[in-house]
Amino acid sequence: MVHNFNAGPSVLPKTVFEQASQAILNFNNTGLSILEIGHRTSLFQNVMDEAIALVKELMQLDSNREVLFLHGGASTQFFQVPMNLLSEGETGAYLDCGTWGTKAIKEAKVFGNVDVVASSKDKNYSYIPKGYTIPAQAKYFHYTSNNTIEGTQMHSIPDSPVPLVADMSSDILSAVLDFNRFDLIYAGAQKNIGAAGVNLVIVNKEILGKVNRKLPSMMDYQQHIANGSMLNTPPVFAVYVCLLTLRWLKEQGGVAAIEKINNKKSELIYNTLDSLPVFKPTVAKEDRSKMNVVFSMENPELEKDFLDLCKKEGMVGIKGHRTVGGFRVSLYNALPLSSVEALTELMKHFALQHA
Amino acid sequence: MVHNFNAGPSVLPKTVFEQASQAILNFNNTGLSILEIGHRTSLFQNVMDEAIALVKELMQLDSNREVLFLHGGASTQFFQVPMNLLSEGETGAYLDCGTWGTKAIKEAKVFGNVDVVASSKDKNYSYIPKGYTIPAQAKYFHYTSNNTIEGTQMHSIPDSPVPLVADMSSDILSAVLDFNRFDLIYAGAQKNIGAAGVNLVIVNKEILGKVNRKLPSMMDYQQHIANGSMLNTPPVFAVYVCLLTLRWLKEQGGVAAIEKINNKKSELIYNTLDSLPVFKPTVAKEDRSKMNVVFSMENPELEKDFLDLCKKEGMVGIKGHRTVGGFRVSLYNALPLSSVEALTELMKHFALQHA
Repeated sequence: MVHNFNAGPSVLPKTVFEQASQAILNFNNTGLSILEIGHRTSLFQNVMDEAIALVKELMQLDSNREVLFLHGGASTQFFQVPMNLLSEGETGAYLDCGTWGTKAIKEAKVFGNVDVVASSKDKNYSYIPKGYTIPAQAKYFHYTSNNTIEGTQMHSIPDSPVPLVADMSSDILSAVLDFNRFDLIYAGAQKNIGAAGVNLVIVNKEILGKVNRKLPSMMDYQQHIANGSMLNTPPVFAVYVCLLTLRWLKEQGGVAAIEKINNKKSELIYNTLDSLPVFKPTVAKEDRSKMNVVFSMENPELEKDFLDLCKKEGMVGIKGHRTVGGFRVSLYNALPLSSVEALTELMKHFALQHA
Repeated sequence: MVHNFNAGPSVLPKTVFEQASQAILNFNNTGLSILEIGHRTSLFQNVMDEAIALVKELMQLDSNREVLFLHGGASTQFFQVPMNLLSEGETGAYLDCGTWGTKAIKEAKVFGNVDVVASSKDKNYSYIPKGYTIPAQAKYFHYTSNNTIEGTQMHSIPDSPVPLVADMSSDILSAVLDFNRFDLIYAGAQKNIGAAGVNLVIVNKEILGKVNRKLPSMMDYQQHIANGSMLNTPPVFAVYVCLLTLRWLKEQGGVAAIEKINNKKSELIYNTLDSLPVFKPTVAKEDRSKMNVVFSMENPELEKDFLDLCKKEGMVGIKGHRTVGGFRVSLYNALPLSSVEALTELMKHFALQHA
């Protein structure tokens, strides 16, 4: 039994693996692999249509929001967003609350000015800045809703006088939110949505078409909307895995139902960490991420022992990011509660041994 | 029995489907799916390293050529190439010999000037222009080596006084070429290399770093080279399918061996077409593609009958591109000779019936 706590690419539902594996041999009883069907066939059009419809349904999107499945990962969106929204000389407002936000800021500077409204760099991004003002003359305000590496998460949507843009790569579809308050949401698929190699982009079409720069076709959201995410050959298999995962999420009862389980998982592990002095959670309590639990040990010399024990017990992916150290336990939608139970039991066992 | 003549995404070797399907359930006996392993693990690093090494070996690349696996498809390269090679005011030389070349030209104009050195648009791209001059002041010369939609193919490499760039999406690895004569080769994977959602890019690093524009990190070939195609999370599964297909190609005896089979397949079908007056191949004989065989019928009213017959006999993907009409039969590396034999038998049978 393997418990997969990887930060991404990460665990997906077992039924998704089974169905994806089967579709590679014989997709929908066509005698063809999902890898060899034409993307302009009704076979694949049905996949794309259902995936888009499920995103709209699960996120309860209004009719202004367009759903796109685009090549690349969030790093592609770091530059595609300002390329589409920011003319030279104009300013994008950014919240600097972690590694990924920092990268998004760097890419925005290629296309325009950046106003960093607040930063938590002073304390290694171990908290979410609060009490900042978003300038009304900015073209948009961008933030990272969950910081995969540092283990912090925004627990409310900021009021913004300008279009709101969020990188939700590592917490999309994990909790109920009013997604219609956002003008652009993007997320690499490889955490809560599917397999690596595709981006989910949700955009309010009203904010597009205002930039005064020539856009390459493949970078132009409006062209992708006009072509239903099929401006070119889409990443067929990656979109199909998204569809399977979205279907699974709906079968679980949707976002509200998965949020309850996610809350149980994160409460269990944070309560365990807080009760065992051997472990040391590293981020501000009120900003703790429900998706990525980051901690170290009071005695760093014990870290290797704990890592070895985890490995022995089939716990995969709990080593912290190389820039942060310590441990990181990722609790994405598809991670079963039983995996968190197994890990917390191991933590208690280890704490007793080293009390 | 299905015979898959799709133009792309298209048939891959049966063993590739089987191995890919298995890896989704249990990758290399890790107990984990290939879809849930971290891309920074040695598990995936080995996949990337072997895929890159196999490309270098199969194409006999010299040490100046870097091999990249990048997100997106050839349409992404249409703009990434000029973005990296063409400063504003500078000129790229392009050969206009089909739908894809036309699109590449459109995207280049976003970044600089385009000199179309020759075009076959006058005859619906049914031939390859010859006798043109490539201007020595151009920054590079770009052409499409095989025109998937129109069914023409370049059968020799042009002498170029400037860096040579080729879109080889639909004939890469199908025949022995001196690939070191090219300074940049790109190819969407979904024909001869693997599954949709990844690009193979081979670039002479000497031509990079000369453009005077700020490049977004994800569009900068130099940054991808420095990061071994792992600047961000790569399309893990799509790269793995490339690896499996490259291994298969090596097991077949490499490019020279597959070229012999490809020659047999294309000779068989063109000889059959030429011998049966009911069929009408549409492109200039000397420019016929060995990958995509395009033809129509002397009597267009019979086209539906032939299409129905093919469908009945399990022949998939032979309908011509919507912009060209008629038929298109794609003969990529993984298409077995037996499929071409089955189709040509059906053609003879049909011709007899309608003699």
